[in-house]
Amino acid sequence: MATIDLTSDVVALTGALVDIASESLSEQEIADAVEQALVAVPHLDVVRDGHTIVARTSLGRGERVVIAGHLDTVPANDNFPSRLEDGVLHGLGSCDMKGGVAVALLLAATVSEPVRDVTYVFYDAEEIAAEFNGLGRLARERPDLLAGDFAILMEPSDAGVEAGCQGTMRVDIRTAGERAHAARSWMGSNAIHALAPVLDRLETYVPREVDIDGLVYREGLNAVGIRGGVAGNVVPDEAVVTVNFRFAPDRSEADAHQHLQEVFEGFGLTVTDSAPGALPGLSQPAVAAFVATVAASPRPKFGWTDVAQFTQLGIPALNYGPGDPIYAHKADEHVPVEHLQRVHATLTKWLTA
Amino acid sequence: MATIDLTSDVVALTGALVDIASESLSEQEIADAVEQALVAVPHLDVVRDGHTIVARTSLGRGERVVIAGHLDTVPANDNFPSRLEDGVLHGLGSCDMKGGVAVALLLAATVSEPVRDVTYVFYDAEEIAAEFNGLGRLARERPDLLAGDFAILMEPSDAGVEAGCQGTMRVDIRTAGERAHAARSWMGSNAIHALAPVLDRLETYVPREVDIDGLVYREGLNAVGIRGGVAGNVVPDEAVVTVNFRFAPDRSEADAHQHLQEVFEGFGLTVTDSAPGALPGLSQPAVAAFVATVAASPRPKFGWTDVAQFTQLGIPALNYGPGDPIYAHKADEHVPVEHLQRVHATLTKWLTA
Repeated sequence: MATIDLTSDVVALTGALVDIASESLSEQEIADAVEQALVAVPHLDVVRDGHTIVARTSLGRGERVVIAGHLDTVPANDNFPSRLEDGVLHGLGSCDMKGGVAVALLLAATVSEPVRDVTYVFYDAEEIAAEFNGLGRLARERPDLLAGDFAILMEPSDAGVEAGCQGTMRVDIRTAGERAHAARSWMGSNAIHALAPVLDRLETYVPREVDIDGLVYREGLNAVGIRGGVAGNVVPDEAVVTVNFRFAPDRSEADAHQHLQEVFEGFGLTVTDSAPGALPGLSQPAVAAFVATVAASPRPKFGWTDVAQFTQLGIPALNYGPGDPIYAHKADEHVPVEHLQRVHATLTKWLTA
Repeated sequence: MATIDLTSDVVALTGALVDIASESLSEQEIADAVEQALVAVPHLDVVRDGHTIVARTSLGRGERVVIAGHLDTVPANDNFPSRLEDGVLHGLGSCDMKGGVAVALLLAATVSEPVRDVTYVFYDAEEIAAEFNGLGRLARERPDLLAGDFAILMEPSDAGVEAGCQGTMRVDIRTAGERAHAARSWMGSNAIHALAPVLDRLETYVPREVDIDGLVYREGLNAVGIRGGVAGNVVPDEAVVTVNFRFAPDRSEADAHQHLQEVFEGFGLTVTDSAPGALPGLSQPAVAAFVATVAASPRPKFGWTDVAQFTQLGIPALNYGPGDPIYAHKADEHVPVEHLQRVHATLTKWLTA
């Protein structure tokens, strides 16, 4: 079985993690290696749940921070194993997010007396459907393991702070008509034509930009699918457009749903997928203190991330990790050595100063 | 395999034909049954071409009439198998056009010495794109089999004479955009939203009505299909709407195409299917003579029918068959028993008097 060495530097450790293949639902080998390395660290209590490993200090500090990263990757794309070249580490998962995992593992092993207690969480199955997500499983079944005052998700954020995240909701809008032969179309009613006002409203929709804690979130309302038609000579009696609404975290899911009902008044909506956003929480003391320490200007997170899982548990959370997220899931995925070293140094200082 | 009995009455035979499923491109079973029944009739020469059956008398009469009907149907719509109730036969294809096919099959089997030679044609794939049409295939490859002085197409025409037919043209209108993650939709451009003006123009289009030889033709312009979408979280970069234009026979295909280019100015059109209309030709002697015999007032034919194929071959042709065409392609498709019997009696008389 694979092993990892927590006395190596952050670049070598990132490379070693990349070299353990861990596509979603195939995390056993990497989880075994992480567990084996962490149980050898005297100042940590280690708990395993499936292929998720939780390692905690218990120093009785007045504050507890959760530092989390997922162990899985998307499928390989001619980018395995790792390769270090000109100050950049290339390879599957280097950016999303084994660089962040390497930083967290080194903090866990080397910072034996942090000024705030730390819960490290290394979890499985983040890159696939939400039902498999290891962090979600813990939140449902072992929320005690996630208890804390503040959480840092080490998703790639260009070595800067990305706060909160937007919510997402998908709805189907269905129109009904009456079938008829296209040669006698006045006998029927065309469900595709009936979608004209829906597309008009989408085309003219002006997405909101909203300032929350000094961060500007940009919403988006998009048709992501459209279908209709029975045959080439038939007036169709049904058509469906699927709309995806990305909403700023000042709206709840219920608010988002109500907004869609207003935008598409007169049409029936069916919600097929929904996940709440997360407020940036920059005014919360724990978050503000972290931002001040890392001297970073927070940016808003547009895409949905597991930050929202912590928000649901009432724990302020943000994204802070090495790697430019633009390269996540790409064949030329990579992480700069400078990001790895800087994030490692910053968090070490924050946990020890 | 299914069999049909040409000694049954026209109602029972129509029901038996409805009960052999024969959606376009799945006509093997019905074509086998028709071929098997016709080769057993001593006074007919039978030729099969694909799933098209041609059966001819060769009595050396001075005149030859072509009597034609298609064997295929549109997809089922909870209307299979047949059901006889209160003098009406219900079921998929009962109206369009297995009633007409049943009449023609009985004429073929029972009128052994018609006063004019007859070519019966039972063909495949009329309800889909013109390229598959069995009659069109014969017209291109075996025009000798279609030779004649006059043609009757037994499409449903309310047991009256419908003259000429409208043309049909199908075009794809495609919009292009740029893909982006739905969470950062301002980085892309939504091809589905770009279809909004196309649906608006369809929704507000006012179709023309035109008088030709005293018959009023009604045109129609309809979306018959729409599609687009990459994934539930992606701004789509392509969308397509398929539009079907039914045009009066005073427009050529080129005229029809130009009209569509004007209606959808600013969008690119791709013609995927096109068939010309047929002028009613009521002044042609063979047409006028038939109309006088059946004592019918001709009406315009809205739907495209294979009358146009005969027009292209220089053979005067009209539609005359049982069933109200309004019910073609509808879930409650049906044909009155009285129509079946009257059309059968009239044609028997015309072929024997």
